[in-house]
Formats: sequence, C-alpha cells, structure tokens
Amino acid sequence: MYNPPGMNAPVRKHIELMHGYTPGEQPTDVAVIKLNTNENPYPPSPRVLSAIGNITAEQLRRYPSPDARDFRRAAAAVHHVEPEMIMPTNGGDELLALVVRACAGENDRVAYLDPGYSLYPVLANMQAAKPIPVDYEISSQEWRVPKNLGDIDAAVLLIVNPNAPSGTLIDLATLEDIARRFSGLLLIDEAYVDFAPISAISLVARFPRLVLLRSMSKGYGLAGMRFGYGIAQAPLIAELYKIRDSYPCDVIAIAAATAAISDQAYAKAVWQKVIEQRQWMTGQLTALGFGVPESHSNFVLAQVPAGMDAALWYEQLKARRILVRYFNLPRLTDKLRITIGTPQQNEIFIQTMAELKTGMTPPD
Amino acid sequence: MYNPPGMNAPVRKHIELMHGYTPGEQPTDVAVIKLNTNENPYPPSPRVLSAIGNITAEQLRRYPSPDARDFRRAAAAVHHVEPEMIMPTNGGDELLALVVRACAGENDRVAYLDPGYSLYPVLANMQAAKPIPVDYEISSQEWRVPKNLGDIDAAVLLIVNPNAPSGTLIDLATLEDIARRFSGLLLIDEAYVDFAPISAISLVARFPRLVLLRSMSKGYGLAGMRFGYGIAQAPLIAELYKIRDSYPCDVIAIAAATAAISDQAYAKAVWQKVIEQRQWMTGQLTALGFGVPESHSNFVLAQVPAGMDAALWYEQLKARRILVRYFNLPRLTDKLRITIGTPQQNEIFIQTMAELKTGMTPPD
Repeated sequence: MYNPPGMNAPVRKHIELMHGYTPGEQPTDVAVIKLNTNENPYPPSPRVLSAIGNITAEQLRRYPSPDARDFRRAAAAVHHVEPEMIMPTNGGDELLALVVRACAGENDRVAYLDPGYSLYPVLANMQAAKPIPVDYEISSQEWRVPKNLGDIDAAVLLIVNPNAPSGTLIDLATLEDIARRFSGLLLIDEAYVDFAPISAISLVARFPRLVLLRSMSKGYGLAGMRFGYGIAQAPLIAELYKIRDSYPCDVIAIAAATAAISDQAYAKAVWQKVIEQRQWMTGQLTALGFGVPESHSNFVLAQVPAGMDAALWYEQLKARRILVRYFNLPRLTDKLRITIGTPQQNEIFIQTMAELKTGMTPPD
Repeated sequence: MYNPPGMNAPVRKHIELMHGYTPGEQPTDVAVIKLNTNENPYPPSPRVLSAIGNITAEQLRRYPSPDARDFRRAAAAVHHVEPEMIMPTNGGDELLALVVRACAGENDRVAYLDPGYSLYPVLANMQAAKPIPVDYEISSQEWRVPKNLGDIDAAVLLIVNPNAPSGTLIDLATLEDIARRFSGLLLIDEAYVDFAPISAISLVARFPRLVLLRSMSKGYGLAGMRFGYGIAQAPLIAELYKIRDSYPCDVIAIAAATAAISDQAYAKAVWQKVIEQRQWMTGQLTALGFGVPESHSNFVLAQVPAGMDAALWYEQLKARRILVRYFNLPRLTDKLRITIGTPQQNEIFIQTMAELKTGMTPPD
C-alpha cells in the first residue's frame, strides 16, 4: 500500500498502519483452469439469465426495494422462517463487516478459529478491535475445535463451517454447546454449507445472539452477482439494519438471486455433482501421497508429501495455467487449497499433479 | 425499530440506542407519479440494456473484477484523471460510509451543513462519533455557507453540492477556501453535479485530503443499479481501499455503469432536458406563490405560501397519487422537495398544485 512519510493522511492511525485483505487472483485469461477462489464450476440456474433478461429500463431508473423484498420472501420460504429473519446483503462479506461493526468497538475482542477465513482478522483490524485467533487442533486427517470454545471472552465469535480452508465440519452438538456458552454475538459462516450434510439453521430459533451467514456465490453459481444473506431472530436483524446502507442490493442482483434460490431442484443437482467430484479428487490426491482431511465443501485442502514444497507446486501449476490457492500463513505453508472444478478440469488437474510429482520426486 | 427491554442485544450500546436512516417511499404502484427520491425521469442510455444483455452465465459464475477495472478506466477517461484516482462503490452511500469509518472514531466530530443530506448524522451515529451540524444561513431566496467554515474543528466535513434538499450551489472560490483551511478529510458530495454548471474536480489535484463523490443514480438514470464512485488523489484512495469489501460492485453493475458513463452524448442531452424542466417548474411554483431558491439540481425545494401547511400539501398530493418529499426536520417543515419529472409528469403536478391551492385558499 502507498503510504509515503509525511503524507499526513486524514484516516485514522490504525487504518494507516493496517494492511487490507488480498482476494484471490482473478485472471482475465479464460483459458486458465481456475481452482483458486471456490467458485461453483457450474453456471447458475437458467432461470437466472431469464430473470436478468426481463429487467426493464424503468427498473434500472428507479431505486430498488430497500429490503430486497422478493428475495427475503423466497429465502424465507426455502428455509421455513419469517422474511423478517432474512437480511440480504451485497455479498456475504458485507454481512461479516456489518456484524463486526455492530458488535466490536476499539479494543474489543473478535475471536475466530484459526486457520479460517483470512478476512476475519482484517475486519477486526478495521475496527481497531483485537483479533483473537483460537487454534484448531490439527492432526494428519482431522481439524478439531478446542474444548469449551464457547467460554471465550469476546464481543464476537466468527466460525466458518464447513471450515475454509480445510473443508472440515464441526458437528451440530458442538455448535450448540458453543452457542449456549458464548456471551457475545456468534456468527456461523455457512458460505459453503450447501455442500455439507448439516446446517446450524435449527439453532436460530433458540439463540437470539446467533447469526447464520449464507452466500449465493458458491452453492448457486453467482459469485459475479455479490449476494449473501443473514438468518437470525428478527430483533437482531432489526439492529443490523440500522447500520447498513439504504439500498445494498441492486434490482438485477435481487432478481437474479431470487430466481436462483427459487430453483432448488437445479441447485441440489449441482451440489450432488460437486460432492461426487470432491470424493473423487480426495481419493486421487490421497493416492498421490497428499494428506487430505475429509472436506464437506467445494474445495479440498491438500498437504504436500513430506519434504516437498507447496509454494513450488503452486508455481509449477500456475506455469501450466492451473490456479490453486497457496496461503503464506502459519500451519498452511505446506498445503494447497484446491477448488472442485468440472470433471474435465479435475482430470486435467490430477493428471498435471501426477506429472509434476514425477518431476519433483528424485529417482530412487 | 424493535428494541424490547431486557433483550440483551449483543450490539454496541450506541447502536441499540440509535435510529437508522429512513429512505424515501418506494411504491410498488407504477401509476404513482413519483417525484420523491430524485431519480432521473429518463431511462439510462440504450447501451446499458445492451451491455446487460451481453452478460454470460460464465461471468455470473466467476467473481467480478475486484476494482471494477473497466469502469475505473472509463471514468478516468471522462474526468481526465488516472484510474488510480477513481474508487467505484456500491452506490454513493457506500463511499460516504467508508469515508466516515476511515476518519471518525468514537467521539470524533463529523461536521456537515444543515439542512443537507439527512444520512450524514446517521453515519456519524453509527460510529459513535459526534454529528456537528453547521447551519446554512437561509433567506427567502438564498442558502449561504457561514464564513470561515473551513476553520471548523472536525475529523470529517461533508458537503453536498449542489445541496440536497435545496438544490442551491456553493461557488468554487468558497469550496477552495474551505479545502485550504480545513484540517480533516473534506468530502464534497457531487451526487447532483451533472445538473449544475460547476464541479470541484479541478481542486482534487491540489488537495490531498479532498474526496469527491459521484453517483450513477441521478445523472445516468441508474438508481436501480447502485453504483457510485469517489475521485481523490491515489494515496487517499489506497487508504480507503483497505477498509472496503473485496468485491463491492457486481459484474453486471460494472458493465452497466461502464456503458452509461461511456455514452456522454446521451447523458448530456438528458441533463439539458432536466435543466429546462427545472426552470419551467421553478417559474410555475413561484407563480403559485411558493418560495423557490434557484436550484442547480434535478429537484426544487418549494416553501409553501405563508399560512399554509406543507404536510397537508404532501398528504393531499399523495391522495392524488403524486409523491413528493416532506421532511419533518428543523427549517424544512414549511417546504416540499419535488423531483423534476418528465414534462408530462411536471404538468400534471403543477395542474394538481393549482387545484389544491384553490381548495386550500379561503375565498376572499
């Protein structure tokens, strides 16, 4: 970041000193096999393009529905909750930022499991709050939550489940225990839950300080549209509404997201295909000597075979126009996060990995 | 807002106590003549619908350009600045919120001219900062800025120019004097500048703590799309980037806004039509006995004739399916803000006002 001495920036000191979040690479080269930012390999429901095609100039000219009414109703019907329990946002990231701002002031503690979504500490830093990472207990095949996590003293606790970047899942009994014990606001980030066997949605009715995050980016193939939403009890949603923008979702995004969530049959068929490919990828990577904990998401985290260099794998894949995600972060430097692609992309990826391994393994 | 005693909300106390911003009514009844939220009466350039029609499912599936690259380049070309001086946001409101968060912490002072855009004090309250209204000096036909406004002690000074809700304009020499004196961050909100004869853009190169706000909602007929942008020196833009979401603008919004700003000939023709209608409306309202300061925006602020009740005018217009904006705020309770509509809408409006006046005036 540009920060010359003596610039006398009018921004607050903690912002001048902080680093922003670095999103994954978004190459413009469409020939790249892009397995780095957890997009769905399949396009959204055909109903989405049809809804977009029906937008009129008159709709563009007028302000959209401030509360994305059509989407709230459609999501409420899918989840069997009231529309007042749904909070549409400009991507799930906006909900995360809102929750942290609502609950954490200067020096307040923002806790999260680590490794997790690397945006969380950045959101805490934006508020001059204290990022409190809580270490996952990582063994070769398992990521475990420390006992009594819910007793932690913090204004906010952020848990992405299934976890990113590991894809591992915290079971419902553990989540319920955390929700019962924790005294601040608990956000369970279910951005990837469409690929998992369980959700914490049954807990919302019982815990007034719980917010679930959902995203249309992964499960519904709409990363380009920026649409997410929160699910929580109505009084908490009403508090969050006070600090959001007046019209966070545009008229086309509302139409697209409503069309997508209303086509559950299409979405479920896509999730099933991704899950099958995830199982195939896990088996192939394991056979190649990688350590892959069981993922319940649309990506896997693969630990490179002992003595090999994950950053080198990343670079060599990139040279062959395959992008995966490498995190230069504690306990992740020996791993690669690989998004599940189409069957064809996955085959090319595994084939390339096998070739690279041959090249990197010294002959016996 | 729902706020039962003993709810034990996990949100910060100042948020629990505050009220959110109330946007203008967005009726679903399309037969209503809607002159209440300052939309452009004309649709966007035909190039916009064409750009939207060209969006592919593949673009929806992938994350958009994090910095809305195409738009940055197009806006930079229009304004003769570098792309690094342009900051695209999810509506102008997002830029306002970013600037206040970047510069104002708890108990910091956020100053603004009053009456002005009624969102400003709400943004200060979100931060537990202190809203510092500075009174406009209002005479029958003029709204004047107090002398030495730039000397005010504040972290941020927000000035909407042309002003909302009056439409009046602060001249460039006064703005330059403010920018030279003011020690915090100065934001000049030019959401309505496309309908005005001057802009402060020539000041950006000289003042490193100045941000201009522009909007695609009014001048370009894209209120439904949520697209605004900031113009400032690159180091300041880089600071603001640190605290924004990773992908604030979606792929369709970027395409639509890029198409709109690239069609300057269409936009300028629209602005000219609105300006002509504004002059006609000002003359008609003045003839009906209203006090109307000279507007340089796409609305006028009309003070009702002495002894009459602005709230009653608002209600009676609404009963006839014409929506205007009434603000129950100090020094605005005797005024109505009326958006300039199409010539046909404006004629119906003036005709209705004349009829209502006859009904409300006691016979001599």
